[in-house]
Amino acid sequence: MSAELPIVRTVADLRAEVGAWKAAGQRVGFTPTMGALHEGHLSLVRLARTRADRVVASVFVNPTQFGPNEDFEAYPRDEARDAALLAEAGCDLMYAPTVAEMYPPGSATTVIVGGVSEPLDGLARPGHFAGVATVVTKLLNQCAPDVAVFGEKDFQQLQVIRTLVRDLDMPVDILGAPTARAADGLALSSRNAYLTEAERRIAAHLNQVLAEALRRVKAGEPVAETESSAVDSLKAAGFSSVDYVEARVPATLARLGPGPAVGPVRVLAAARLGRTRLIDNMGD
Amino acid sequence: MSAELPIVRTVADLRAEVGAWKAAGQRVGFTPTMGALHEGHLSLVRLARTRADRVVASVFVNPTQFGPNEDFEAYPRDEARDAALLAEAGCDLMYAPTVAEMYPPGSATTVIVGGVSEPLDGLARPGHFAGVATVVTKLLNQCAPDVAVFGEKDFQQLQVIRTLVRDLDMPVDILGAPTARAADGLALSSRNAYLTEAERRIAAHLNQVLAEALRRVKAGEPVAETESSAVDSLKAAGFSSVDYVEARVPATLARLGPGPAVGPVRVLAAARLGRTRLIDNMGD
Repeated sequence: MSAELPIVRTVADLRAEVGAWKAAGQRVGFTPTMGALHEGHLSLVRLARTRADRVVASVFVNPTQFGPNEDFEAYPRDEARDAALLAEAGCDLMYAPTVAEMYPPGSATTVIVGGVSEPLDGLARPGHFAGVATVVTKLLNQCAPDVAVFGEKDFQQLQVIRTLVRDLDMPVDILGAPTARAADGLALSSRNAYLTEAERRIAAHLNQVLAEALRRVKAGEPVAETESSAVDSLKAAGFSSVDYVEARVPATLARLGPGPAVGPVRVLAAARLGRTRLIDNMGD
Repeated sequence: MSAELPIVRTVADLRAEVGAWKAAGQRVGFTPTMGALHEGHLSLVRLARTRADRVVASVFVNPTQFGPNEDFEAYPRDEARDAALLAEAGCDLMYAPTVAEMYPPGSATTVIVGGVSEPLDGLARPGHFAGVATVVTKLLNQCAPDVAVFGEKDFQQLQVIRTLVRDLDMPVDILGAPTARAADGLALSSRNAYLTEAERRIAAHLNQVLAEALRRVKAGEPVAETESSAVDSLKAAGFSSVDYVEARVPATLARLGPGPAVGPVRVLAAARLGRTRLIDNMGD
């Protein structure tokens, strides 16, 4: 049984804790989350631990990155369970601010990342990456960690964050962590909890279709045909609809050039099962 | 004769210098400028000195805050003179990055401040405050000062910066410094160098018209009539055109309510003399 995890809820309290560690010469790692933690999040905490003396995890369901018809209200929340899991994974401090602490009246500043945030989920979820970029800028400034860890599961988000940290000259190292998967390859996600048993079986096709699409693109097969064949496979497997399956240049998320792929490739997909939207991606 | 001022041109070199001071427990002040320094800038450096052990001034003519038909190319530049003036004012380090150092290929992130950046110069100079907000965010992250000083001469800019620092939780104190003025009250500005002798005489009316408008609003005279009478006075004095004269709530730059003004007031103006655009403001 782990000791109880300390929880702070204000920027001032967070800074007091982190400031004391830094004054003692300790290196600080940080993992922002929206709670509803699973093994994927815990792997981020453990990775942060290998790079830092102290690890902070934030738990904040950020309203500004949800669209008006998305699942902000329904998003699963269980702080006590999250705290227990974080403590077991070696986290030293949970930062769980309120919406009012994060966005006091008069808040008016938005961080916009061009390029990498525009395609894929940028098209499917208008405003989503502005919400992500802004809250991550705030969280990084609030915590001031030496290193922050984000999952490759949200690959486009990871590239958006790498871009803003570079462009705004934020003094923090950004580390991507491999996607944690279930035994059948399904990427772990808090939204998997929404799936019925039947949907859960269909969901497992997503990673298989991505793996096959990546293999075909790397083998030199035409990109557009591979993508549309992957969309067909997901629909045939039972997905309600497919937002996209696309092969892209990993660092920029630009389209691949014509002809056989040269250089690294990342294949990204978003598809829906009933009211649940799943994303996944794979690269070489 | 002052000793020669050290100059750094890269983020890495700036961080090395500032990091050494911080490691020694010294407090760091910062004054961002576009060079072409005058007594107004030097007063910012001297104010920074009263709050910090070391003072950095940046000299960077930021292309992203100039519109396509504005004076980016013509903006006066004289680094050797700037360095000598800064040294005399007690500055410890000049940071003079190149455009390529500030905006490497692929730069794609913009900081947008809603509300306070929208009226006045936000309308007159589309994109200007996005350029200001982004470069100031970068400069503050690059230098990581304890306190940064900006002039009230650019009052709307000061409020934009206060807003973004608060909203993005940047760990720095922002200090506004009173506007430095010539003997006839003209606000000191690098752009005053563009004025002919005849224009320079007309320019002195700007601060007098602002003072009179502020007096009238504070005396309870109707705001709209006072503003339009001030515009007429500037045109009668010889200004080519007037972008605006407006009385606003200082902190938010929102319009004043109807009826006699209650609470603090700031009157802001922008007007043109030939190709030169001058701004000024006054408050209680």
